[in-house]
Amino acid sequence: MTRRELISTEIELPKDEVYYQIKRIIDNLPKPVDGLGKFEDLICKIGSMQDTIHPDIKEKALVVMCADNGILEEGVTEVGGYMTGLICKKMADGEASVCYMADIAGVKVMPVDIGINGDIEGKNLIVNKIAKGTKNFVKEPAMTEEQVLEAIKTGMDIVTKLKSEGYGLICTGDMGIGNTTTAVALICAILEGDPEALAGRGAGASDAIHKRKLDAIFEGLHIYGYDGSAGFSSLSGYDSPYGMGQDAGRIVEMVMNLGGLDIAGLIGIFIGGAINHIPVVVDGILPAAAALAADNIIPGCKSYMLGSHFGKEPATEIVFEELEIDPVINADMAMGEGVGAVMLMPMLDMVMSMYNNLGTEEEESLNYD
Amino acid sequence: MTRRELISTEIELPKDEVYYQIKRIIDNLPKPVDGLGKFEDLICKIGSMQDTIHPDIKEKALVVMCADNGILEEGVTEVGGYMTGLICKKMADGEASVCYMADIAGVKVMPVDIGINGDIEGKNLIVNKIAKGTKNFVKEPAMTEEQVLEAIKTGMDIVTKLKSEGYGLICTGDMGIGNTTTAVALICAILEGDPEALAGRGAGASDAIHKRKLDAIFEGLHIYGYDGSAGFSSLSGYDSPYGMGQDAGRIVEMVMNLGGLDIAGLIGIFIGGAINHIPVVVDGILPAAAALAADNIIPGCKSYMLGSHFGKEPATEIVFEELEIDPVINADMAMGEGVGAVMLMPMLDMVMSMYNNLGTEEEESLNYD
Repeated sequence: MTRRELISTEIELPKDEVYYQIKRIIDNLPKPVDGLGKFEDLICKIGSMQDTIHPDIKEKALVVMCADNGILEEGVTEVGGYMTGLICKKMADGEASVCYMADIAGVKVMPVDIGINGDIEGKNLIVNKIAKGTKNFVKEPAMTEEQVLEAIKTGMDIVTKLKSEGYGLICTGDMGIGNTTTAVALICAILEGDPEALAGRGAGASDAIHKRKLDAIFEGLHIYGYDGSAGFSSLSGYDSPYGMGQDAGRIVEMVMNLGGLDIAGLIGIFIGGAINHIPVVVDGILPAAAALAADNIIPGCKSYMLGSHFGKEPATEIVFEELEIDPVINADMAMGEGVGAVMLMPMLDMVMSMYNNLGTEEEESLNYD
Repeated sequence: MTRRELISTEIELPKDEVYYQIKRIIDNLPKPVDGLGKFEDLICKIGSMQDTIHPDIKEKALVVMCADNGILEEGVTEVGGYMTGLICKKMADGEASVCYMADIAGVKVMPVDIGINGDIEGKNLIVNKIAKGTKNFVKEPAMTEEQVLEAIKTGMDIVTKLKSEGYGLICTGDMGIGNTTTAVALICAILEGDPEALAGRGAGASDAIHKRKLDAIFEGLHIYGYDGSAGFSSLSGYDSPYGMGQDAGRIVEMVMNLGGLDIAGLIGIFIGGAINHIPVVVDGILPAAAALAADNIIPGCKSYMLGSHFGKEPATEIVFEELEIDPVINADMAMGEGVGAVMLMPMLDMVMSMYNNLGTEEEESLNYD
């Protein structure tokens, strides 16, 4: 796939009339009007994304993009990079934390080796290794343009395959030591945000490590010219990046320069979701960075995104606002792996069951309205 | 049960050492420290409530207290009182909204006719009718003291029975047209709160109905002397009611005067939970009012309470703060019926599965710490 091919990808937006048709059915359910709050919006959105008033999310997959990050050389994490492959291996063997949760939620866990620095195996592993980790972005661009495009294509192809296998909804997750650094750097680049305000502690970094993380982000943004001549915008009352002239090509370059392969793969998942009319759940800071990039590369992608939880990373909230995502879980989690998305699934199954069991009968009566 | 017997009920508080023992096991799980955020606190709390590092919440019940309210005479609702029995009947037949959700969550729905104005039947219905609805509290006390005590006893007995049947956790729900009026009145009485600030729109009241609701609450508080000689406290920066000299007997009187039978029944559920070391989930404004009353009647009851969702009623938040409850679902719901509690259950099952499957091995190593 060339950059031009990527950028000229066409998507259809979900239809408003399907959304409102579903809302009218929900309003006829034996319950207080708007009683299910944000969940009513979620049912309507999922239906309009799937272009049907009978949405089907029985089959659900969690795609966890796993990759190593060259920026680790700068000492931005407590834990060594070996942990990426180790946890990915556990996921592939069904033994990672998220697997026990996904079993209960009826979600198929699919870890993808899109760039682990080392070779692992496991029964559920999808191997699409683009490189053995990225380069250190304060020394050289994290990836080549070919690598970025190949990683995005990998994600898009995975969604097409999942669609053909009957999956109705995709959860996103990530595993990659150091990837909160790349995620925040990319978010700051796209939104012209201040790293001081947007970089959190990842999974609990010390002061020294947090400082090294911030330094790396500042340096990366400076090297590639993403800090702006007038410094960073305050992000208090900031305007949409659409107004800032960030074009799709420039976003691809940002991903190339700052990384990571997990982000690029997830960008492909989000674009693939929009192409295939499949809702994709944005879970945590890494998927949030990818989602933001995806919507800037292919405007409208966000119409196929759902939120799951508010995490601990400050950048997430500003990205969610940009993507008009309003998660229902608020539990101070910082897990990665798509755990929050998996947690959302039984709640969606519940409201969907209510809708399908109680809502269908009212359908005909709507014809008389 | 006499008032004296109720008030002299003794409960044991959960043990801190169990809480911290579980937290240490969780900290050894293959995941970022505190990565599960509030859910880690929930696992620790449930374990300490059950007094074991191997908490068991496989069997879960939703007790929905159903009752009619005399205050309906004042025109405080859009919908007529007939709806209470109608929805209760649907619940008893497994056909109410919450039933479809509870099926997925593996929760047994148990509607209790504790005061419906009319006779209904249904396979899952528990009939413990204390009266055919309460009296209109702006004309006379909603209940007699005997009725309050009998309703509380009913709730306590239900928990004892559920415990003997192997249930490990109880969700609370309510069905009673007009019961946001009684709930807010009681909360205002206990916390000396201002009805203007604390009364919401219930399930979507019009301006006229909202005004009648407010008028009824103000009048009720005035008649029984709960508005204080100096008016209401602002509730901005208010102090704990424990400092206000609200003694247990006075709380019982408040419930007697303002109602309702559903609240009294749920007070019994919360006290029963504390007696039987069973976690009870507080879901929505009506259970919140009952939970607040329960903890003021038997101080420490709140140690056996868990939160589920933040609802749309403004009073809920102030009660949650008082009870140190921090819900994880934030979805603007206004359903009643215990829907939010049911939604929480699969998430608890998930984190519990992770804890049980991955946490047990680390247990021995803790002995060497």
